[in-house]
Formats: sequence, C-alpha cells, structure tokens
Amino acid sequence: MTAASTAENAAPSSSEVLAAIDMGSNSFHMVVARLVHGEIRTLEKMGEKVQLGAGLDEHNRLTPEAQERALACLSRFAQRLNGIPADSVQIVGTNALRVARNAQAFMDRAEEVLGYPVEIIAGREEARLIYLGVSHTLSDDSGRRLVIDIGGGSTEFIIGQRFEPQVLESLHMGCVSFRNRYFPDGKITRRQMDKAITHAEQELLNIRQHYRSVGWQSAVGSSGSIKAISNALASLKITDGTITRTGMQELRKRLVDMGKTEKLGDLGIREDRRSIFPAGFAILMAAFQSLGIDDMTFADGALREGLLYDIAGRFRHEDVRERTISALQERYHVDQDHGAAVEATAVAAWEQVANTWNLRTTSDEEALRWACRLHEIGLTISHSQYHKHGAYLLRYSDLPGFSQQFQRDLATLVRGHRRKFSPAIFEGLEPEDETRLRYLCVLVRLAVLIQHPRNLEPPPRFRLSADDRKLVVEFDEGWLADRPLTLADLENERDYLAKQDFQLEIVGG
Amino acid sequence: MTAASTAENAAPSSSEVLAAIDMGSNSFHMVVARLVHGEIRTLEKMGEKVQLGAGLDEHNRLTPEAQERALACLSRFAQRLNGIPADSVQIVGTNALRVARNAQAFMDRAEEVLGYPVEIIAGREEARLIYLGVSHTLSDDSGRRLVIDIGGGSTEFIIGQRFEPQVLESLHMGCVSFRNRYFPDGKITRRQMDKAITHAEQELLNIRQHYRSVGWQSAVGSSGSIKAISNALASLKITDGTITRTGMQELRKRLVDMGKTEKLGDLGIREDRRSIFPAGFAILMAAFQSLGIDDMTFADGALREGLLYDIAGRFRHEDVRERTISALQERYHVDQDHGAAVEATAVAAWEQVANTWNLRTTSDEEALRWACRLHEIGLTISHSQYHKHGAYLLRYSDLPGFSQQFQRDLATLVRGHRRKFSPAIFEGLEPEDETRLRYLCVLVRLAVLIQHPRNLEPPPRFRLSADDRKLVVEFDEGWLADRPLTLADLENERDYLAKQDFQLEIVGG
Repeated sequence: MTAASTAENAAPSSSEVLAAIDMGSNSFHMVVARLVHGEIRTLEKMGEKVQLGAGLDEHNRLTPEAQERALACLSRFAQRLNGIPADSVQIVGTNALRVARNAQAFMDRAEEVLGYPVEIIAGREEARLIYLGVSHTLSDDSGRRLVIDIGGGSTEFIIGQRFEPQVLESLHMGCVSFRNRYFPDGKITRRQMDKAITHAEQELLNIRQHYRSVGWQSAVGSSGSIKAISNALASLKITDGTITRTGMQELRKRLVDMGKTEKLGDLGIREDRRSIFPAGFAILMAAFQSLGIDDMTFADGALREGLLYDIAGRFRHEDVRERTISALQERYHVDQDHGAAVEATAVAAWEQVANTWNLRTTSDEEALRWACRLHEIGLTISHSQYHKHGAYLLRYSDLPGFSQQFQRDLATLVRGHRRKFSPAIFEGLEPEDETRLRYLCVLVRLAVLIQHPRNLEPPPRFRLSADDRKLVVEFDEGWLADRPLTLADLENERDYLAKQDFQLEIVGG
Repeated sequence: MTAASTAENAAPSSSEVLAAIDMGSNSFHMVVARLVHGEIRTLEKMGEKVQLGAGLDEHNRLTPEAQERALACLSRFAQRLNGIPADSVQIVGTNALRVARNAQAFMDRAEEVLGYPVEIIAGREEARLIYLGVSHTLSDDSGRRLVIDIGGGSTEFIIGQRFEPQVLESLHMGCVSFRNRYFPDGKITRRQMDKAITHAEQELLNIRQHYRSVGWQSAVGSSGSIKAISNALASLKITDGTITRTGMQELRKRLVDMGKTEKLGDLGIREDRRSIFPAGFAILMAAFQSLGIDDMTFADGALREGLLYDIAGRFRHEDVRERTISALQERYHVDQDHGAAVEATAVAAWEQVANTWNLRTTSDEEALRWACRLHEIGLTISHSQYHKHGAYLLRYSDLPGFSQQFQRDLATLVRGHRRKFSPAIFEGLEPEDETRLRYLCVLVRLAVLIQHPRNLEPPPRFRLSADDRKLVVEFDEGWLADRPLTLADLENERDYLAKQDFQLEIVGG
C-alpha cells in the first residue's frame, strides 16, 4: 500500500470541491479548491475590494451603498459556488460584521444571494483560521513562529508551531479603521504617523509581555498590507523584500517625505491599496517595536485557506470543535458521565422525530449532542440559575471552530434546558431558527428530565410521535410506575410546555 | 503565658459587643453577644415570626402589610443595637428578599430604621454561615457531618468537617412556600403530604448523588422546623427526641390521622408554628429518603450565630473573603503580579483623595483592592469585552463571605475599569452608591492605565488633588515624557471621563 492510497482512504472522496469566502472589512475573497488525496489544490481565487468596514456609519450601521457593493460582489461569487454541497462551503464575516448593528439583516440578504449559510466568526477564531491557512503554505518546520495578519478592522497575532496555534489574539485595529482615523485625506504627516503608531502600540500593550515571554523563531506576515510593504521595500531596493526593522524605519521616512498617498504608485502599490497603506504600515511598525521583531517574511495563505483546511479537517474527522467541547468540559469540571447519558437519551429521542420536525441536518444533531454534553457548564459559577450562566459562557467564550451563530444556538439550548419554557429563551432569533431551536430544546429538556435521577441508567425505551405542536411520549408498561419522581417531572414539564402552546402527552403509567 | 492570654492577644479588644440580625422568610432573629478572649458569649436573643415570605404577592412583591410587620420588628431590634460599632454588626436577608422584586425599596427603609447597612446574601453563602454557626455549637469532632437547615423559603444542605464546610447547597424550597402550596387551608391529607414530599424529592435529585458519594458520619438539623419535629417525636414518646427514619414514618401517619394543623397543639407545637409544621416535615422526610439519613439530632445555632463567628473571624484577620479572592484568581488564571501592581497603585491614589471624596470606610478600601486584584478575571472567557465578562462572573458566582451588594460593587468596578466611562456602568444603583462607586472606578481606571505597560514597576510618584468633579494628576518632572504610551492613555482617559462631566487634568509632561 502506498502513502497516496492511505491518504485516499482517509478522505471520503478522492476528489471533492471545496469553497471558502472571507467577507473581510477591506476585501471579500473567494477560493475554490479541489481536495485530492487529502491535499488542497486551488482551482480559483477571486477578490474584490468591497471596503465593507469603510461603509459603517457613525452608528456602526452598514450603509445601503456598502451593502449593495457587498451583495453585488457576492452575487458574482455565487455563480461559481453553484452545485458545491453545503458541507463543503464555508462563508464567514469578520470584524466589520462583528461590529455592524444591522449585521443580521445584511446576513439574511447575503444568504439569499449566495444560497449558502453565512457565519460571523469571533476574533480569536479568525486568528486560528489564519494560522491554519498560513501554516499550510510554509514547508519548513523551524520551531515556533509568530504570524501577523493585518485586516481592515482587526489585526491577528498568533504564535504556533507546525499546524498548532498556541497563543491567539485579535486586536481591534485595522488598516481601514486606522486610515479613517489618521489618514482620512490622503496626507501622510509625521505627526499623524506618530499618532497612529502610538495608538497601535497602546493596543499591543495588552499582549506584548505575554508574546515576548512565549517567544518565536521566525516571524511571518500575511494579508495584503504586509505583502504591499514587502513589495515596497523591494521596489525601493531597501531590502530584497524581507521586512526588517531598519527597512521599516527607512520606509517610514520615505512615506513622510512623500506626504501623500497618491504618490505611492511610485512604489508599485496598486491604486486601490494606496489609501490604506500608511495605516497598515503604522500597525506593522508598532508590532515591530512592541514585540521586538527583527525581521519578517511575507507568506501567502490566510483566512480563506484556513477555512478550506478546516473543512478538509472535518472530512477527516479531525473536527476542532470536538476538542473545544472536551476542553470546556474539563475547564468547568462538568460531570461528563451524566452529560453522556443525557446525550444518548436526547439522540434516541431525536432519531424518532427528526423527520417530522425537519431536524435532519448534521448541525442539528451536533447542536443537540454538544448542548447535552455542556448543559451543566454554568454550575461552576453558581447552582442558582445555572442554565443562564451556562448560556453566558457559551455565548461569549472564545470557542475554537465555532461560529458566533453556532455558539448562540448552543447557548439557547443550554439556557432553555430547565425551569420555565419561556419565550425569552428564543428572543431575537429569526423565525426559522426559533422553530428549529424550540424543537431541539424540547428534546434536550426531555433528556435532562429522564436522566434527572443521575443514576446513569441507559436511556429507557420510549416511543415518540410528534406533530407541529405536540409530542407523545410512551414508556414501556410499568417503567414510569416505578419512577414517581420522573412522572412528577414529566407532569411539571407538561405544564411548562403548555405555556408555549406545546402539548406533551405521557403514555404508560 | 496562658492559653487565655494568647487568645486575648489575638482579639483587638478583650470584650467587644457583636450583633447579628437574620431577616428570614419565616422569622426575624437577632442575637447580641460579647466577644470575650476570642469566644462568643450570647447576651441576648430575640425572634419574631414576621412571615416575610408569606407576604410575597403573586408578582413576587412584598405587600405593604408585610413590609410594615418587618419594619416594626426591626425598629424593636434597633433599640438594642444602639451604640454598637458598624463593623461589629451584620444584618442579612435571605430567600424572601432574594426573590422579592421590590427588595431594594424595602432594604432602604430597613437601613433607615436600623441605622446600619443591610445585605442580601446568596443561598450558598447562607449555607456557609449556617454551617459556621452550627459547627461552633457542637463540641464533638466525629468526622464529617451533614447539616440541614429548613428555612421559610430555602433549605440548606452542608457537608463539612470541624469548622470547614466542604459541600454547600441551598435549594429553593422552604416551609413557608411549601405551606402555601400544599397545606394552605390547614388540612393535612395523605395526598397533599405525598405531593409535598415528592416535590421536595425532585429538588433533591440534583444533589442526591453527590451528597451520598461524599458521605457523612453524623447528621444534624438546625432551625425551628427541625426543632419542632424533634419535640413532637419526644412528646409522642416515639423517640427520645432523636429524629429517626422510623420515627419520621410514624409521625407521618399521625399527622395524616390528625388531618388538621390546629390539632398540632397536642404535640406541644406552638401556635405560630402549627401552619408550617407539615410543610417542614415533608421537606425533612424527603431529605431522609433521598439522602438515606438514618438519624439526626437537633443542634442549636444557625445563621445568626454564623454571622457572629464571621465578624469575630474578621477581627482575628481570618477573613474568609481574602480566601475567596485568592481562589478566584487561581480558578480564572489571573496574572497575580499585575493585579498586585494595579492594587498598589490604586491604593496610593486612594490615600490621597479618600477624604475629599468621602471614601474612608474599610469597605471602600476593600472594594478598591479586590477589584484591582480581579480586574482581568474575564479574560478566561474572551479578550473581547473582558471587563463585562469579569463583571458577570463577580455578580453571579458563589463567593463565600460576600453579600450580594458587595459582589455588585466589585462587578461595577470591574465592568468600568476600561474603555468608555459610560453611564450604563452605574445603572440601577442608588444615588449614594453611584457616587461612591464612580469615584472608586476613577481610581481603578487610573491605576490600570498607569500599570498598562505591565512592567511591574513600583507605582510612580504622583500627586493627586481632587474636588467634586475633577481630579488633577501630577507626575514627577520627566516621568511622563519618557512614557509616551502612558501619556496617550491619559489623554484618552481625559476624553472618556469628560463624557461623564468629570475633568482629568494631567500635570508634568
């Protein structure tokens, strides 16, 4: 058996098309690739400078014009996606959508245009994916590396080794937001450059000491800003394209001497990048000074490639999300046996009603399983109202591999797993998410209730039948009669569900 | 040197008067004691059946009548408190005030009547204090003990050894709430008794397995309900007053046979306890069954004695709150060196303005110190908005030794330690708390900002002068000039504070 055929066995299909779209604050990028024997071969790359971040008004709302620009770009991308299975596509939004107050409305329209789900990812998740993308483009294995990616609205700093990120941060500063603040009129003055660098250094104060103490052997930059700086250094013959500290100091002088972004064409900088160049430069300069970087090389590969490797990893059953769930169980001392018992019970219930309730997707099952494993996570904070504490932790923690929407789904299920089945649990959800999560929530509640005695019994045999607003639970003759507490719990649950116009019928006393 | 004189050295005064008031859901109790050579000698006990819990209407608001009953009782207590220093008095509310929506308004009036601060404590804190009270009344040292205290609105279950509680829970069921639900009309039927016991068993399901696996050598009950059960068993000559499982079963039959609470006088039960007796009995019966208790003795000493021992502990510098703060730092991996640097800087600032801003109490200093030590606690959840996550953890965690108000104060200071100085930070506070916390918050922010570079330098020398809405910070000549980042931070801070009409003046560039 050759190595190639081993790899082939590991992948579900020897040739599968994958696609990723990164809706960045500055540019939107799409990459389409083929997964061949477990390796990713790029078929096509597209990018458009949508400048979504620049389209945020003073109330942090995306302007109609910015939305139209973005949707027009996505409609072009959509044509290329046509026919790729949903499991093979990841589409994510980053900082501009993280901060936009009207992000949900935009996302709905984007999903309609694209025909695929669209997710917003947290800063540290973005950092993880960037590292995944960059690390796959580097062939060396020269110890720990620092990766910096300057985006339009955030800048990611990652220290990792081989394919494993070890320290992840995303700071709230980017070349679009800094351009707007320090170089809005295309002038590059010493004073504004100093202000921009000082601001970036202030942001870096929070991570400087930790990053320096962890250390690295090589520094790598990705993203257009760093590529443009490398190109400028080469075209000015300051260096061979390596970004060095003295090279950066020299470039800083030259920029201030030029005084205007329109002159940046002389350095070979494309027109659509000129206005943001000094801002990206200031952020990198601050990183060199704060972190004590001596030199840095540019590396291709970034968020969008990271997304592709993430999909490929799931195909190979290396789902980073499973690791995240286990890490959460450990960190918050969750009773894992009890979680597993609740999960088994919930899945046994789900299998019987998934068709009727239209809960057949992989992510429905995943949400159900993981919510069951984590439903007691809030107990670490306090027993009182622990379902709410668990929901808070799931909603706001940095969870590698998870989109913000998936975290919200898990938080909703944990929030609703006990006590009143209140409409507040589902507040603010889109109608279709509400329907789906309401059904999943009923299943989590039923499983928790059946496992309430915590004796780790295997799930009892029960038969479920359902329609829209009704669930009939039938136990084997006599099972309930021996378990008066479970019966009392079920009767309570009947009252709880009735409050939301949902009927629970209990058969077999 | 004798043992007695050693104890004398440990206490700040050889004879100090202490007082505690427990505003329970069923009764209010006061105990006044003298601390003699480190030991507590009771001077006076008072109790009144205020039935605050029964005074909650269907919207969980305390009725005006219930409030008047309570305030009248407190005014009688107040007379006795007169002249005892504030540090020697603890006044706490438990479940009825935890759930009352109009608790704050009542508390304000109670503080006015009493002339002392009044606090609401969380369930587990109540459990800790009960254990402290009970354990000091028991002379034996016979291994682990289970302590149960049935209150009006909650029941506490504690396993501990000597003076150390090991497992603490407070369940949301009590003799007043169960009386209202299962025995509202004074009738004791088999059916209602069964229902009440089943309900209590359901609540116990959550803790049953854990408590059984930890185990205990002796079971002890405190509180009036358990005392009355012990007395009833003795007066019926079922046992000598020991509460046994067979004794409980026999008593259950007798109660149902009697059928009416008004007949309970035959068992020597005082009139004001008769209506709640069957409810308390049902809860204890459920505990015997769920936890597998064989026998239990009644012990004097409860929440109010625990409060006294808690005050006495603080006098001996055994402040349980210090341990709680350290445990939090450990659990959430806080950078303790950095926390200590921020604390030292904040205290140096506080000493200069405490008089002007009227922040001279011990608890002002404590809040300042502990908020500084814990300000980064939310980083475990996520770097993004970590001040809000920290505030959440401090507000909702079970923190031994802390009242809910103190936790709110710490949460407020952590919430406000960085980013915008927004009015939302102080929302919902009473005006005087708002003023106090706003000043403390300015000090925490200043200290965090000065220590922002995280180089653990000792705090720089700075001179503060303040008036109502203004703070002037003066650094040694040249100190700021060498620290452009700190200067930029201070300038940002000036803008932030100005938004809340607070002027920051920076002197010494």
